[in-house]
Amino acid sequence: MIYLDNSATTHPLPEVLESYQKVADQYYANPSSVHRFGSEAERLLQHSRNQAAHLLGVDPQEVIFTSGGTEGNNMAIKGIAFMHQDRGKHLITSKIEHPSVMEAYRALESLGFEVSYIDVDRNGIVDPKKIVEAIREDTILVSIMSVNNELGTVQPVQEIGNILRKYPKLFFHVDHVQGLGKINLPIKGSGIDLCTISGHKIHGLKGTGALIVQKNVSLFPLLHGGSQEIEVRAGTENLPGTVAFVKALRLNLETQQQSLEELKSLRKTLWNELSKIDELVINSPEDSAPHIINFSIPGYKPEVVIHDLGEKDIFISTKSACSSKQPDVSAVLKACNLDRSRTTSALRVSLSYHNTEDEILTFIDALKDTIKKLQPTMGR
Amino acid sequence: MIYLDNSATTHPLPEVLESYQKVADQYYANPSSVHRFGSEAERLLQHSRNQAAHLLGVDPQEVIFTSGGTEGNNMAIKGIAFMHQDRGKHLITSKIEHPSVMEAYRALESLGFEVSYIDVDRNGIVDPKKIVEAIREDTILVSIMSVNNELGTVQPVQEIGNILRKYPKLFFHVDHVQGLGKINLPIKGSGIDLCTISGHKIHGLKGTGALIVQKNVSLFPLLHGGSQEIEVRAGTENLPGTVAFVKALRLNLETQQQSLEELKSLRKTLWNELSKIDELVINSPEDSAPHIINFSIPGYKPEVVIHDLGEKDIFISTKSACSSKQPDVSAVLKACNLDRSRTTSALRVSLSYHNTEDEILTFIDALKDTIKKLQPTMGR
Repeated sequence: MIYLDNSATTHPLPEVLESYQKVADQYYANPSSVHRFGSEAERLLQHSRNQAAHLLGVDPQEVIFTSGGTEGNNMAIKGIAFMHQDRGKHLITSKIEHPSVMEAYRALESLGFEVSYIDVDRNGIVDPKKIVEAIREDTILVSIMSVNNELGTVQPVQEIGNILRKYPKLFFHVDHVQGLGKINLPIKGSGIDLCTISGHKIHGLKGTGALIVQKNVSLFPLLHGGSQEIEVRAGTENLPGTVAFVKALRLNLETQQQSLEELKSLRKTLWNELSKIDELVINSPEDSAPHIINFSIPGYKPEVVIHDLGEKDIFISTKSACSSKQPDVSAVLKACNLDRSRTTSALRVSLSYHNTEDEILTFIDALKDTIKKLQPTMGR
Repeated sequence: MIYLDNSATTHPLPEVLESYQKVADQYYANPSSVHRFGSEAERLLQHSRNQAAHLLGVDPQEVIFTSGGTEGNNMAIKGIAFMHQDRGKHLITSKIEHPSVMEAYRALESLGFEVSYIDVDRNGIVDPKKIVEAIREDTILVSIMSVNNELGTVQPVQEIGNILRKYPKLFFHVDHVQGLGKINLPIKGSGIDLCTISGHKIHGLKGTGALIVQKNVSLFPLLHGGSQEIEVRAGTENLPGTVAFVKALRLNLETQQQSLEELKSLRKTLWNELSKIDELVINSPEDSAPHIINFSIPGYKPEVVIHDLGEKDIFISTKSACSSKQPDVSAVLKACNLDRSRTTSALRVSLSYHNTEDEILTFIDALKDTIKKLQPTMGR
């Protein structure tokens, strides 16, 4: 099997699964229980929080463990909106955010909030000036992702964060799910108030992740109840999931330090080989994140290409998994103003640090073969 | 170790952990990915949903997998409130609900909803007549738990459900987290619109659970994003957690069928032995759920008793884990009108199907020893 759908999800590392297993079996007490067995679980949780904070360069009380990226994004966006609506009901985001951001904003519109959706350029990049132009007296929140999940476009998050410092009445939220471990983004010092990360995109486990919330930021919780997670996220803590998440985080950041150049070179190989295929046009910017290349084969139905590659045990994707069951057009590519022949025929290859050059070359041969075999089914 | 804090959380079964491990390692694709590897994950998810539905006697599209009981309760309560607020903003619940229900209601009060908190009797039982008296033209939701987590009190949920059928404009939500696998409650046919269950209370894994939502009930999602979970709960599905949850559910319901009488007899032994201890007064009703007994040792600080038992490797609890870090008084016992000497000295023993009579007798001896050793620290 050649798995090239790592932006949808990744294979959990054996060490991560081992940690999960061990904690689930041996430290199963409720960390909120006052007995010694509970205190041991509580200490392990605190240790995980400290370690996550250290790895991310933030304070332990700024790490809120969640059930994943979608929860983190919803918690940040709705949490700010409900908590600070007295100050204003205007929100800003871009036109190419992940569905868990986009749909959270649309839901808030249905509850009386107003949202400005900022245009992007041909490469999917948000111009910080356009954000500034959209800011109003009643703006309370701006959400911009660090790396786009379909294109790999890297947004100028630090530049935006530095500009937004001048507007102390609004909060800046970054969906860093695709960027974590792939691009360098210091959460502290970039003007970021809330930052979403997820476990299963970095060889951790599904159902794990964190929202980093700067100390001075108050949120209306999505999940009310007990006083877990600094009273911002109630519910019995998923301790095995959390320990496994922090292990995946550590291993991922170590791998990034050691192997980022190799990953970039792997993408370069992929880029060069894809460029040689006449039927195909690359949609990602050349200087995007090191793990994503999006391309279109105008006239070819992406599902058919994916199916044929699947027969050869090679797995790539259309758009993002979270919108893959939606019809036809990629909203992200459409926002980049690409024409319909490209927005309806887009495919995504997403790499992990564990893919090899051999796999890439095998994939390229298989793709050429698939293109030759299949007939274009739509006008090109 | 003698673990008697099973209402806080339980030891995951080895079979459950094995399923988790296997699915996490072998079926790691994103169920929303359109390739064959994703489709296999999707089929496994559908199989789990069908199995859960079969076990619970509901339809597959009524099973929404969640990250646990707190999410299920918040999703039900806020989901109904936000979706149906145009029809009315009045809500009803009891005074002894779990913090994840209580605090969700309090949060809605801060957003302009009005809540009637129904009194309970000395045993913690809600009188259905009092619910009917509280219903208004603008009532949209009633939440009553099936089994109280501190006392084990079993509420007349079916009776309430049958009465509430006469009010088709309001929804009935049941927090069944403590009742699942311990009391019989047919979700269908009891007038229940939404029913919360959790995995880690039935020897499943933390971070897993489900909300059962009857087909005709529409909810405002807590988590917006992709179209997962029948478009009610976005986010990459935690497939290993879900498979493990459904396995725990199946094993738990099988055990209930085989061993409910044994569990009842174990509780009877515990009840009889506790009754013989002069310093102690039992707070639970005699005919409560088969796994919980709450008692007070007036004059003794519960934390000190728990600590001393912990030294002997025996683990019981004060109140519920979710409110255990809160000061002193049990709000549940206070609502039952017990005096302060009891509300401040309450302890809870909660059994699982895996506890033995030997463990109970060892615990009783240890408790007698602890009471003898410790001095009462408060006026009795």
